[in-house]
This record gives sequence, structure tokens and C-alpha cells, in this order.
Amino acid sequence: MSSNNPDRVYTAGLVVIGDEILSGRTHDKNIAQVASWLQVQGIRLAEVRVVPDVEAKIIEAVNALRSANDYLFTTGGIGPTHDDITVDAVAQTLGVDVIVHPTARAILEKYYAEKGGLTEARLRMARVPDGAELIPNRMSGAPGIRIGNIHLMAGVPHITAGMLDALTGTLEGGMPLKNETIGCWTAESEVADILRKAEQAHEKCQIGSYPFFREGKVGANFVVRSTDAEELANCVHTLCEALAEAGHSFTPGGI
Amino acid sequence: MSSNNPDRVYTAGLVVIGDEILSGRTHDKNIAQVASWLQVQGIRLAEVRVVPDVEAKIIEAVNALRSANDYLFTTGGIGPTHDDITVDAVAQTLGVDVIVHPTARAILEKYYAEKGGLTEARLRMARVPDGAELIPNRMSGAPGIRIGNIHLMAGVPHITAGMLDALTGTLEGGMPLKNETIGCWTAESEVADILRKAEQAHEKCQIGSYPFFREGKVGANFVVRSTDAEELANCVHTLCEALAEAGHSFTPGGI
Repeated sequence: MSSNNPDRVYTAGLVVIGDEILSGRTHDKNIAQVASWLQVQGIRLAEVRVVPDVEAKIIEAVNALRSANDYLFTTGGIGPTHDDITVDAVAQTLGVDVIVHPTARAILEKYYAEKGGLTEARLRMARVPDGAELIPNRMSGAPGIRIGNIHLMAGVPHITAGMLDALTGTLEGGMPLKNETIGCWTAESEVADILRKAEQAHEKCQIGSYPFFREGKVGANFVVRSTDAEELANCVHTLCEALAEAGHSFTPGGI
Repeated sequence: MSSNNPDRVYTAGLVVIGDEILSGRTHDKNIAQVASWLQVQGIRLAEVRVVPDVEAKIIEAVNALRSANDYLFTTGGIGPTHDDITVDAVAQTLGVDVIVHPTARAILEKYYAEKGGLTEARLRMARVPDGAELIPNRMSGAPGIRIGNIHLMAGVPHITAGMLDALTGTLEGGMPLKNETIGCWTAESEVADILRKAEQAHEKCQIGSYPFFREGKVGANFVVRSTDAEELANCVHTLCEALAEAGHSFTPGGI
């Protein structure tokens, strides 16, 4: 997976597993968390799929996103209960057996030593696809799992955060996508032309426009993104000059 | 799409469109909002895909989810700026032209009459795939779009909320999935067996387990779901009896 090409873009897919997200009961926090973490690693989140606790659906999504991207992450479904089927689904995707990982078993034995011991349900959290490594979990014992380019993480956001921490700096990435934000108390429809022309003039940059309605007024933040710091600065300069010329005041850093 | 089968399950897919979600800049609120609204309509959200502002990616996701489900919803990318390409992508998916919808144009002309008039950028928001109807937007003028089983909605959550309101009661659904929650100050790993057996004893029910860590203690909410009210009550009864028998106190309604 190593590369000497500085322009190589690394991508990741994310599969969020859980009926509770699709029912609206739980508001997902992992998409934004994984997305922000990946940015810092120089890896772009290219696609997310949210699927129910149904083996065939998990397999389909994992298969599609692991082959289309450098890395695949999943959140959810690695706990001790009957609806936690991510390990089985991934093992089946890869055509390998599910085994009890000796280190995971030892971690759980220690973690539950004074909490009633390692029951059959708790031992489920030591099950991994054959050939997997563990991702440390300093929050609650049960580790995350890494096999090939697939990373299985918890559904509970603060546990996922700990697992991401453990992975920091271990995945090869590319140049991180830098960004600068310009805020404007102007309807985006008034400056659409300016945005389009600024983007066209700087082909290494993308400009996103994010409208808002606050304090009784409309406005928008314009986010310029690029892996090239110089081109990013140039594009921001072009955009600010054009806004000023058209009589729109703006706030560097965003509103 | 009508059906006399009371057990017919209606499903929907959701495509969330926007670089800002994949970069972690914006925390998505539309997944939970659309999911909760669909529940009330008797429609299950079967899958969500989050894709960037890239035409090929939008087309791929729209095509996959519109054929796999009764309904497809999209959020994002229907504004006035250059990065708003959802209408073009959907028109291309369906093999139809993009036209200016006369009613949408009239709505926007009125809305912008005292706000500088209908510029070229604003007119972009009247563009629809040929053959589409409009979904009213009482928040900000620019309407949502419905064509076949596809519903294009705004990215800004409160505007999407207004569009969902306008659609309430217009889509055929099935029996809504009812649910009851039982909370327990117990690690889910201690009751995993009880949950599995209660679910097995009531095949029309699913039980989800959602652990939490609060006030220094672990606990979990168990959500029993079924379209059959009687079976739901029976399953909750089985679960509560088994919890009581094993010495776990529990809170009906959840913690």
C-alpha cells in the first residue's frame, strides 16, 4: 500500500451498522467523528453506508466499500448480545472462520475478573475473523479488530474515539485536505457566480457553499478545500477580491 | 404501489449528498429526522448512503437504492450554487432532460420579488428533471422535487423538515413498527442470554440492546420492535419476567 507519489489520494469507506440509527432512535455521531479523524490522517472519507443488523446487508456493504477504498471502517455490532453480528458477517465476507483470539480472551478475563468473570456472552467479544489483529480499547476492555484493510470498531462513540486514538499514525495517508472558510451575510444565490468562477480559476481547489439563517438574517460560509497550500491561498484571495468588488463584506475564518 | 396485504413491508432508501458531511465539517441531522418521519408513515428506512458532490457517485447511489426500495429520498445539493448538482445527477439517472418548472419559477419570482429579483443563480432552483412534481417548501421558497419514487429534499435540516411535513400522509405505507423500551442498570453482557431467548420465543419481534455508561455505572436499554402489538406485549412480558427471575431490576419505558 506504500507509494512514492505525493499526489496519491487515500480513501476510506465507512459502514455504520445498527437498526437504532435507521429507526431514528439514535442520532449517529460516528460519521462525523471518523470523518474528522481521517482528515488528520490524510485519508478522505469517500462514502458511508448505514445498514441494519442483517448479515446479508452488512456483507454487501463491506464488500463494496472495502474493494473501492484503501481502508474500510465499520462501527457497531461487536458487543456481547445476539444482535452483534459484525464479526460473523466480516468473516463470511472474507471466507475465513471465526476464532477466539487468545489475547482478546486474556484482556476480557482480566477486565471482568472482579465483575462476575468471563461468561459465554462476554467471551463473544473475543471472537475475531481468523487472521485478525486487535485494536486496543482503553475504555471498556473489548478490543476493536483489524483484518486486512478492514477495521471493526464499537458503536458507542466514546469507545470508538479510544480505538481511533489507538490507530492514530498507523495508517498510511496522503497530503491532508486543507481548508479555509470565508463567511458572508449574503444569500448564497447572490454570489453563486462569484463562487463558480473562483473555483474554475483554481482547478486544484473545490469550493463548498453552506447557507444558514441566523439572527433573522441569511448568510453562508464558503469553504475552499485543496491539498495544495499555495493554490488554496490563491483561491481564497481570488474569492475575497471578487466578493469585495461586488460590494459583499466577508469574514475570514467564517461566521 | 397499492397493496391489500396487511403484512406488506414498505421500505425507503436515503442518499445524503454533500462533501461537508464526509469531511466531518457538518454533523448530519437528516438521517435521524428522515428515519423518524418514515417510521410514522409506516415505511422502514432500509439503507442510507452518504456520497460526495460528485455526479457519478450520486448516480450510482440513487440507482442502487431507488430500485431496491419503494421510495428513495435524497438530501442536499438542490440550492443555487455550482456544487448543487443533485437535479442534474437524478435527471441523468432517469435519462430525462432538465427543464425549468413553470410553477417553481413563479414561486421563486414571488419569493425574490423584493429581494433583488430572480437572478440566473436563483433560477437554478426552479430546474427539475422533466416530468417532476414539486414538494412545497414553506421555509425558503425553493421547492423540493418528486419524480417517480424519488424525493429530492434540501440539505438544511429545518427546510427538509418543512418538506417532510408537506409529504405527510401522501406516501402509502404498511403497519408501523411499534416498539417498547426496557431499561436496566446491568451490563448487557450479563443478560445477553435472556435477550436472545426472549427474541427466539417471539419470532415476530426483534430485540435491540443499547448499552450506556452514566453516573459512573453501566446499563442498557432493550428495545423490542414488532408490527404486531399483541406479540410485542407478549415479548416484553417474557423479557421482564426473565429479568426479574434472574434478579435484575428494570425500568419500563427505558432509562
